[in-house]
Amino acid sequence: MPTHPATPFDGQPFDGLLIGASLATLDGGGYGEVPDGALAWKDGVLAYVGPRAGLPGAPDTLAHQVIETSGWVTPALVDAHTHLVFAGDRAREFEMRLQGKTYEEIARAGGGIVSTVRAVRDADEAALFAQSLPRAQALLRDGVTTMEIKSGYGLDFESERRMLRVARNIGQTLNVTVRTTYLAAHALPPEFKDNADGYIDEVVAWLPRLHAEGLVDAVDAFCEGIGFSPAQTRRVFEAARALDIPVKLHADQLSDLGGAGLSAEFDGLSADHVEHTNDAGVRSMAERGTVAVLLPGAFHVLRDTKLPPIEAFRAHGVPMAVATDCNPGTSPLLSLRQAMQLACTHFRLTPEEALRGATVNGARALGLHDRGILRVGMRADFVAWHVRHPSELCYWLGGDLINTVHANGHRLA
Amino acid sequence: MPTHPATPFDGQPFDGLLIGASLATLDGGGYGEVPDGALAWKDGVLAYVGPRAGLPGAPDTLAHQVIETSGWVTPALVDAHTHLVFAGDRAREFEMRLQGKTYEEIARAGGGIVSTVRAVRDADEAALFAQSLPRAQALLRDGVTTMEIKSGYGLDFESERRMLRVARNIGQTLNVTVRTTYLAAHALPPEFKDNADGYIDEVVAWLPRLHAEGLVDAVDAFCEGIGFSPAQTRRVFEAARALDIPVKLHADQLSDLGGAGLSAEFDGLSADHVEHTNDAGVRSMAERGTVAVLLPGAFHVLRDTKLPPIEAFRAHGVPMAVATDCNPGTSPLLSLRQAMQLACTHFRLTPEEALRGATVNGARALGLHDRGILRVGMRADFVAWHVRHPSELCYWLGGDLINTVHANGHRLA
Ligand SMILES: [Zn+2]
Ligand SMILES: [Zn+2]
Repeated sequence: MPTHPATPFDGQPFDGLLIGASLATLDGGGYGEVPDGALAWKDGVLAYVGPRAGLPGAPDTLAHQVIETSGWVTPALVDAHTHLVFAGDRAREFEMRLQGKTYEEIARAGGGIVSTVRAVRDADEAALFAQSLPRAQALLRDGVTTMEIKSGYGLDFESERRMLRVARNIGQTLNVTVRTTYLAAHALPPEFKDNADGYIDEVVAWLPRLHAEGLVDAVDAFCEGIGFSPAQTRRVFEAARALDIPVKLHADQLSDLGGAGLSAEFDGLSADHVEHTNDAGVRSMAERGTVAVLLPGAFHVLRDTKLPPIEAFRAHGVPMAVATDCNPGTSPLLSLRQAMQLACTHFRLTPEEALRGATVNGARALGLHDRGILRVGMRADFVAWHVRHPSELCYWLGGDLINTVHANGHRLA
Repeated sequence: MPTHPATPFDGQPFDGLLIGASLATLDGGGYGEVPDGALAWKDGVLAYVGPRAGLPGAPDTLAHQVIETSGWVTPALVDAHTHLVFAGDRAREFEMRLQGKTYEEIARAGGGIVSTVRAVRDADEAALFAQSLPRAQALLRDGVTTMEIKSGYGLDFESERRMLRVARNIGQTLNVTVRTTYLAAHALPPEFKDNADGYIDEVVAWLPRLHAEGLVDAVDAFCEGIGFSPAQTRRVFEAARALDIPVKLHADQLSDLGGAGLSAEFDGLSADHVEHTNDAGVRSMAERGTVAVLLPGAFHVLRDTKLPPIEAFRAHGVPMAVATDCNPGTSPLLSLRQAMQLACTHFRLTPEEALRGATVNGARALGLHDRGILRVGMRADFVAWHVRHPSELCYWLGGDLINTVHANGHRLA
């Protein structure tokens, strides 16, 4: 473990100090383990990370507040890909599939993404907020303090705007960091049937207006045979580049359209799903520092069998993130820890890779470099877990392993 | 929905009355849905189950306590197969497998069931209780009020006894129903290496002593190439029959040894796992009323591909239960709801089948006929969930969907 000098203790007490647990700092190799560690923070930033024995005095002389815990402390989790703002749910559709109903029967019964679009369009901002907030709370209660939230179920200007406003409001309400992503190019709305290019004209026209309202941290598209073509995606990305907004992409989930390479070409923060990404795409991602965001929830629910090229990502040093993809159709996940379990089980990530994927690499996929590692100077976002070893975070399905969740030095759970 | 007459309201108030939710009674076909229902209980037993409009008066005139909730109420969950009393965990072994370590390397590092046996033998009763209780609490907090708990990591008289005593203590401490199962024939202890028949002599000798202490509600064995033979299993079952103790069996998980048929032959409560059960076994189960206990957690973690004969169970009317199999080696599940999700995803059970599997059929697999359905005269064991439809119980991974959990008319969560 590399040691990082603490901020010199200048006699001013820390805001808080946590003792009694081991630390998985993720700083350096492995888990960056510090047995019997201590963690102190001031003004929302980590001010001491190291062995308890290295503290410059008795704990209660050093901080306004001392938390005595046990188990392990990790960086707080970062969920880099969610669609958690939506109305309605699709549990009935899930049930109909299991009852052997055909896609046509499900569509006739009002299923599919269209049903979510209809529910979102029908919901006013308060209703959309009330339905979405519990999902963000569920993620928080399992350790997530930074989450990405996409639009993409409105598909008209006002509804996309409403989704993004709700996402911002969730961040303010819960004191978590929300990064908003404009995903109007998620599906073709019924009013643009057979006119995808015409819809992309609108998507491109709405972007500067929403960006001017401070609602857009990144731009995304669903590049797929059943979504938008690489040429249409490129138009969306060029509009983002003109406004200096970073991009990311739903890439190569169901087929290989070269989406990962396209995201990398635009210096994309990430390429997401990436089950079908080929070697050239992996190399482009490695060159540009584009993160591979793995979404094992959808893989699980859809009973997919095509694994993302994990070995190639490892070989080329492409950072891998793990996210919930929380969405009503294909990934009804309310816990990032469960996504980590699925990433280990289905994708054979090691628990350490899954934890890095849900912390430092998740942060990187959002363009955030101030969190995801326990290190002096980083944000005081951390979780104390009831576990004997960090590998347990990927081992248990269900249960509540949380002792405390802190963001910016404040206790949130 | 069949209607069940309420106990005539005799002017004596109910102990409790729940209103505001829909009911999934599981009485009759489908979910047995009662929209805008009401549920009343007295002396731990359901005294009214039906539409709110059918109540014989204003709610606050009818009961000492009125609970106003929303969402759906189902029977409380029944987890019919767990090994939740154990010491240590095997998360490091899980990690080593994902790091590509061989079984030999893992064994050399102290992994495998032997490591759990060692930890259980080393733990005194208080330590074993302290480590196991949180797992039972996790199940309870996700809706389980009746759980089976097996011995089988002690493999000597005192350690098996200690496990069963801890199981009983958990039931008393949490006010949940615990059904104990004697599973000394789980694995061969090191001191009986190459002498499985000699070990079975002991297993058979210990049974009456433990039964005399009131510690044994059922008897189980691991009948498998790597476990005990059908002939050895038969000896254990005969010992159980002599004491009039019901049996069940870890049957046909990895190969077809005819375990399901063997359990049925002894009028077994259940045959569990049953991935490799053949048609004759299914027919025997149907004849004897032996429940198929499906354990999708182990299937998931082991990335098994051999599905249990679900269609044959349906065709022959074999009741299917769904259980967590909570254990440190192959099924670290702390939520029966997550097992229900896995049963739908991996085994293609419908959400209704999974819910019946985790309620009425789970109860039946434990020989309990007083719970698992909301009906007048049944135990007042029920859960109020934050959902719009019962299918959501099998849809979400993670999150907290619980409003309240009641057992015997008392609120436990
Ligand atoms: Zn997505
Ligand atoms: Zn078992």
